[in-house]
Amino acid sequence: MIYGLPLLQALVDHFRKLPGVGEKTARRLAFTVLDMDAGEVKQFAEALVQAKQRIGKCTRCGNLAETELCPICTDERRIGTILCVVERPADLLVLEGSGQYRGRYHVLHGVLSPLDGVGPGELNLDALERRVQEEGIQEVSVATNPSIEGDTTSLYIANILRKYGVKVTRPARGLPIGSALEYVDRGTITKALEGREQI
Amino acid sequence: MIYGLPLLQALVDHFRKLPGVGEKTARRLAFTVLDMDAGEVKQFAEALVQAKQRIGKCTRCGNLAETELCPICTDERRIGTILCVVERPADLLVLEGSGQYRGRYHVLHGVLSPLDGVGPGELNLDALERRVQEEGIQEVSVATNPSIEGDTTSLYIANILRKYGVKVTRPARGLPIGSALEYVDRGTITKALEGREQI
Repeated sequence: MIYGLPLLQALVDHFRKLPGVGEKTARRLAFTVLDMDAGEVKQFAEALVQAKQRIGKCTRCGNLAETELCPICTDERRIGTILCVVERPADLLVLEGSGQYRGRYHVLHGVLSPLDGVGPGELNLDALERRVQEEGIQEVSVATNPSIEGDTTSLYIANILRKYGVKVTRPARGLPIGSALEYVDRGTITKALEGREQI
Repeated sequence: MIYGLPLLQALVDHFRKLPGVGEKTARRLAFTVLDMDAGEVKQFAEALVQAKQRIGKCTRCGNLAETELCPICTDERRIGTILCVVERPADLLVLEGSGQYRGRYHVLHGVLSPLDGVGPGELNLDALERRVQEEGIQEVSVATNPSIEGDTTSLYIANILRKYGVKVTRPARGLPIGSALEYVDRGTITKALEGREQI
């Protein structure tokens, strides 16, 4: 508690709500704000409000969008016959960052997790099924996280898409580049051995 | 660069300007904001602007203040004859957090650092000298950081205050509580041995 400075305390409290920010970091961030130009602080505040107000979901794929469709859905250069399914928009950004994928996306906004009350109805799955039927999709690559929930969700998606004759794939699991065998967990080792390739 | 989402990019860029926040963390913070309630985001934005606009410096001690004088200068229960000199308001908060100090403060807003162009004129030193003369101060405890600049500044302050007959002290340097001798640096060991106390 910062004695006698309620405005400073309020700002610290807001920073504390951000992930990974404790009391000390929140204070440091607040002091940084006090050291900024007034104009810059106003722009920061405006950026917060504008981003929240004007960023919505793409009505086709569920990605973040500042207009009705997201920039990837409207980009004619993207390959329209392959879809990459991700859990969240943040995952999409990571895949885009690699620059290797030229197809389009479909964002689920979650994974199947019965314990958390997330069933198929809570995910963006109906739209996926509709797109597979209407857009002439040939391959759906399910890039959910390599976790129990992610794997379950990918199996579920493979099941519901089977009847459309579309190829459903999953990114390879194996040794991360730059890792050391010594520190890789048993599950990853198993996957890496199962998926070994001839050199 | 986030392709096609300028409002998201703008928010990420603002978060990136905060200390200790890189591209990945900035994106994570921006996504957190998008997941918040619109009302909460507005309050966060408002807190930024209000804190910047309305928090200034106490005209007496230089501490942060939302009115002319800071809460410590206006608190009649504080001992008025001892001043603790700190580099920044953040240091004051840490000292206050210990709950051990009942005197008042004086905030320099920096330390002497000729290489960075910070001389005595850049610090809140004239006001300190005036306070020592006018407020009947008996002791000035210089709690600048235990660094070269902090030590230089404390010596400088001791010199300019000598003529007023005020006692100038410095918090003890020694082993931090909870530390292990094995990991303490040589300078700290030296100070701890010099300042040894009978048990």
